[in-house]
Amino acid sequence: MKRLQMFGLLNKDMEILEKELYRSVQGDDPLLTETSLHLLKAGGKRLRPVFVLMGGKFGTYDLDKLKRIAVPLELIHSASLVHDDVIDDADTRRGEPTVKAKWDDKIAMYTGDYIYAKALAITAELPNPRIHQILSKAMVEMTIGEMEQIRDFFNSGQSVRHYLRRIRRKTALLIAISCQLGALAADAELEKAGLLYKYGYNVGMAFQIRDDLLDLRGTEKQIGKPPGSDMRQGNITLPVIYTLEDDRLRGALLDELEQIREGRAGAGRAIDIILSGDGISRAEELASRYIDKALAALDKLPNNRTKGNLRDIAYFVTGRAY
Amino acid sequence: MKRLQMFGLLNKDMEILEKELYRSVQGDDPLLTETSLHLLKAGGKRLRPVFVLMGGKFGTYDLDKLKRIAVPLELIHSASLVHDDVIDDADTRRGEPTVKAKWDDKIAMYTGDYIYAKALAITAELPNPRIHQILSKAMVEMTIGEMEQIRDFFNSGQSVRHYLRRIRRKTALLIAISCQLGALAADAELEKAGLLYKYGYNVGMAFQIRDDLLDLRGTEKQIGKPPGSDMRQGNITLPVIYTLEDDRLRGALLDELEQIREGRAGAGRAIDIILSGDGISRAEELASRYIDKALAALDKLPNNRTKGNLRDIAYFVTGRAY
Repeated sequence: MKRLQMFGLLNKDMEILEKELYRSVQGDDPLLTETSLHLLKAGGKRLRPVFVLMGGKFGTYDLDKLKRIAVPLELIHSASLVHDDVIDDADTRRGEPTVKAKWDDKIAMYTGDYIYAKALAITAELPNPRIHQILSKAMVEMTIGEMEQIRDFFNSGQSVRHYLRRIRRKTALLIAISCQLGALAADAELEKAGLLYKYGYNVGMAFQIRDDLLDLRGTEKQIGKPPGSDMRQGNITLPVIYTLEDDRLRGALLDELEQIREGRAGAGRAIDIILSGDGISRAEELASRYIDKALAALDKLPNNRTKGNLRDIAYFVTGRAY
Repeated sequence: MKRLQMFGLLNKDMEILEKELYRSVQGDDPLLTETSLHLLKAGGKRLRPVFVLMGGKFGTYDLDKLKRIAVPLELIHSASLVHDDVIDDADTRRGEPTVKAKWDDKIAMYTGDYIYAKALAITAELPNPRIHQILSKAMVEMTIGEMEQIRDFFNSGQSVRHYLRRIRRKTALLIAISCQLGALAADAELEKAGLLYKYGYNVGMAFQIRDDLLDLRGTEKQIGKPPGSDMRQGNITLPVIYTLEDDRLRGALLDELEQIREGRAGAGRAIDIILSGDGISRAEELASRYIDKALAALDKLPNNRTKGNLRDIAYFVTGRAY
């Protein structure tokens, strides 16, 4: 996916951040520079840095301070992706070969370790200990979420609650703290930082649900990989869980999941079963509820131009027209 | 290897730290708790925590502060080992199955990520930003050292300088900052902390050279794995580099290394070649020079009981009689 380009007022600062991001992994070691830049230059929406800058707009906006949060947050996100690709045995991401495919699993593992460490070394320059605490706790939660994900591969008995807890750790938390830390680094009031956290958390939840939906409904061109990849990896997402709650479809879907697990079937028939029920629409509905909560938090923030942009992002994330 | 048991005055505090270490990885997730405890309970000398406590003896010794440094340092070391075992495809460590052998590579990778994050979350509770900076920079250097190591597998053209730079990053730096951060956390004078850093750095260099020597000269029982494991993995250590400098042995050793690389030979003949030259004694000599430097730094510190213990450790590390 391409970088978000909708925010005229931030575009210049985002360009600066993009260069900072590249610079942050350069010069230590030729191979690490190459693998890290390959990863970073493959792109991404840069959602977390955008949220940091926007959070900063609710206080005293200072790009120099904000970049010390925006760059590490994008680095942490990128490091988690390079490790995820090892776990998922993924050969492409965003249409580019992954580090594990272009080099190997071991190099991908150390690339991730290096980028994590770099992220922390950058935030360590900030004087605010609260920021380290929030960031390192979020990293702990992320790794727990990732481990839950592999433990739950092909676990068709998992509940909606289980799924939500996992995506909270895996995705929503990092987006929530992006908004919050941007505000804190700009010395915004704690209440505003708290509302931004709520906004980010709910947008993050909606974003992951929508991403999981896209994996079932998107075309290969849209999502950069064949549809049903999650199921083939054993990653049981919300529409699957909802469909398994439907007595008329449960048996057939369980059969298909078993066949996929044993490598005897692709995801095609399973997707057909899911599309025949209400799993997709129920998941969409839940994503919408999260967006409503995000908008409610936003409402309590003072009116400014950024607030309008954050509303736009909320709509953009769920794919609603706006 | 067993925990160091030589320091009567620290034994009680080391027992407390050992429990803290286990507690630090418990309760977040059942699988992560299990894998992390498996790793930590397999043992280790706990060299880094010992050095933190000893560093603390040069200031106002406060176990409560020191444990927030000692535990993370041991965690970072342990996380690096669990990732190393994935790279080295190692099935046992300290006589116990590795996490990657008992579970798998993926679980080992996330266990390492989790333990790294946990380490940082603990130090984030400390108010001293200088400590985070030192710690996160050391982590960056460690990951660079690890990447250098895989990049240099079977690189028989590497220089002594190259090797020393790698073990500095891989080992010596973390031991150096263990001594230094212990002193800093105890509000010792910067000069003392600096001398302790020098002591730790030089002991760490000697320690790694000795460890690499042991891999060639030790019995399987002593080192917990078959001798020559480093060479079989392609890890070119100091005695190998010295032997390659010897024109009478160079050709034969290069041939053997090539055969090992291609999986057509074990390390037996290569070890015989190395033992026939002066590579071992030259490496021993260099380790001794590092120990001498460590002792010189120690001499400048005020006399106390800990100073005697640090001298004992320096001797212990090189395996000299004392």
